[in-house]
Amino acid sequence: MTQTIQAAFYRGDRTFTVETAEAAGPAAGEVSIRIAYCGICGTDMHVYHGNMDARVGFERVIGHEMSGVVAAVGDGVTGFAEGQKVVVRPLDHCGDCPACNAGHQHICHNLKFLGLDTNGAMQEIWTVPSHTVHLLPDDMRLDHAALIEPVAVACHDVRMSNLQAGEDVLVIGGGPIGMLCAMVARDAGGNVVVSEVNEARLAIAEKLGFDTVNPAKADLAAAIQERTGGKGADVVFEVSGSQPGVDAMTACAATRARIVMVAIHAQKPQIDLFQFFWRELQMVGVRVYEPQDYDKAISIVASGGVDAETFITDVSPLADIQKAFEQLDSSPTALKSLIKVGDFA
Amino acid sequence: MTQTIQAAFYRGDRTFTVETAEAAGPAAGEVSIRIAYCGICGTDMHVYHGNMDARVGFERVIGHEMSGVVAAVGDGVTGFAEGQKVVVRPLDHCGDCPACNAGHQHICHNLKFLGLDTNGAMQEIWTVPSHTVHLLPDDMRLDHAALIEPVAVACHDVRMSNLQAGEDVLVIGGGPIGMLCAMVARDAGGNVVVSEVNEARLAIAEKLGFDTVNPAKADLAAAIQERTGGKGADVVFEVSGSQPGVDAMTACAATRARIVMVAIHAQKPQIDLFQFFWRELQMVGVRVYEPQDYDKAISIVASGGVDAETFITDVSPLADIQKAFEQLDSSPTALKSLIKVGDFA
Repeated sequence: MTQTIQAAFYRGDRTFTVETAEAAGPAAGEVSIRIAYCGICGTDMHVYHGNMDARVGFERVIGHEMSGVVAAVGDGVTGFAEGQKVVVRPLDHCGDCPACNAGHQHICHNLKFLGLDTNGAMQEIWTVPSHTVHLLPDDMRLDHAALIEPVAVACHDVRMSNLQAGEDVLVIGGGPIGMLCAMVARDAGGNVVVSEVNEARLAIAEKLGFDTVNPAKADLAAAIQERTGGKGADVVFEVSGSQPGVDAMTACAATRARIVMVAIHAQKPQIDLFQFFWRELQMVGVRVYEPQDYDKAISIVASGGVDAETFITDVSPLADIQKAFEQLDSSPTALKSLIKVGDFA
Repeated sequence: MTQTIQAAFYRGDRTFTVETAEAAGPAAGEVSIRIAYCGICGTDMHVYHGNMDARVGFERVIGHEMSGVVAAVGDGVTGFAEGQKVVVRPLDHCGDCPACNAGHQHICHNLKFLGLDTNGAMQEIWTVPSHTVHLLPDDMRLDHAALIEPVAVACHDVRMSNLQAGEDVLVIGGGPIGMLCAMVARDAGGNVVVSEVNEARLAIAEKLGFDTVNPAKADLAAAIQERTGGKGADVVFEVSGSQPGVDAMTACAATRARIVMVAIHAQKPQIDLFQFFWRELQMVGVRVYEPQDYDKAISIVASGGVDAETFITDVSPLADIQKAFEQLDSSPTALKSLIKVGDFA
């Protein structure tokens, strides 16, 4: 059974077109989802900028920060029924590489990222492998639920940091993922400081209740030492992707601090390895999420541990997707823009 | 009570003088040790080269890789008796800094390293705080026991790597500490490859039974991928202190590999942080040792897990200390030179 739907295609040259398409019903092992909302991820902005054309091509529906309800389930799928609220963990692994064999399927050597390597959620009906689907509580708002994917990133990052309640946390970089790391770390009991140079983002961080430092105006390391009695931060999230951020991550770290490398550094920055030796610092690379991070993200969004109202700065209908990307690209104050894909929610 | 002894003083300008000195008896809380052997550490070579003159001055007896027997115990000291074989863990902490408060006394912010910040073991009698003394088995050879301090460094490094039996290990840099890391990792069940550019050291590594790669002659990453079925090394010890070593540590690492930063990088090398993200790599800085690392080192030296006969390449009497430093400085084949301080052993 196919259905006629509206879908947003990336056509290259910073252009999306919303077109009529046919959605096939779910094959065996798949679930079809009626999409409610789909957030615009930083990766989606990279697609818009043309940086990922070789990977996604010009026939692609992108989008993965979604929420929706089950439309239909394929043969052999158990545990899901039409009408249930769901989100998708958009990772499809090969099952037969060294990472999969070691139990790290989320960083499979042949990982397919749904919504980049396959079509994604910026269409009215999205069909995915059932192993990627997570059920939501019945009373969860579907606009808030569209935050679960990026919140799961932050939940993974905080879990990998082994943060303990009462520890001092520094988040370097107050973009969307940095801000979510800050909120999830606070939810876990951390005393969080956010470092950010953009004044608009600093204002949002303060509105979210965080202590902030602008390292362009103050000595960040001195500010952290002062707040921690000369100890330094127990956990540092480097989310800036910048050389000054990499310099700060070692300068601000306590003895045996855990530095979480959240940012994607395309260049190879210089790192103060002497401080790694001297203070026995630890650094852990983090990428996407595992199933338990989705469970935690659903729980945090449900409990209000993430301030969704402040975090969602814009909602646009699917028909206006082009304008939504253009606005997000030029706005200094936007954090998370959602596309309202379906009108049923 | 004082005793007349022979002691080797560092006088600057690559010069040691062996002189008659007075050794005071142990004060309360101290133990006096009759020194049998004292190894020459890489740090001692730094002193010899004049790189640490500001720290050690020109009145200093250096040396900390020692073995000996208890000569006398001070008031209030329990658990030690004259004639027992012992080694010293040469770290004296302040007890009142953020590191000490967090239980990491070995990297105390105000750490005194015995034999650099105080007089050391290149003298016939050395008096130290009793909390630094470890008892040895009665039947342990005192020349072998002089290896316990550097072996404890390797035990700390391997412990901090969380190495599991059967894992693939790469040691980058086959100097004394790299070779000890390789031996301790093998003792823990690791499948160890040693990477080293110096052919003399490669020959020693092979004599010690290790699989080796010369990265100046072969593609190290390809060699590791080939040996591990495309997985990479689960644990990497970076002991080279070089940019090529830092490049190799990420290129050779398996998904979620643990990279142990053993080398002291005075410069700030460039690091492929993208690989930390992509493979969720972890890096842990390591410095000196904790008491349990000494216990483990004593056990490994006692069991023959370290090939002391191959590792000790030279033994000189205290009177020849000047020549011993000069020879070690110019020898491509030397690994560990011992000074035989006392003639009783």
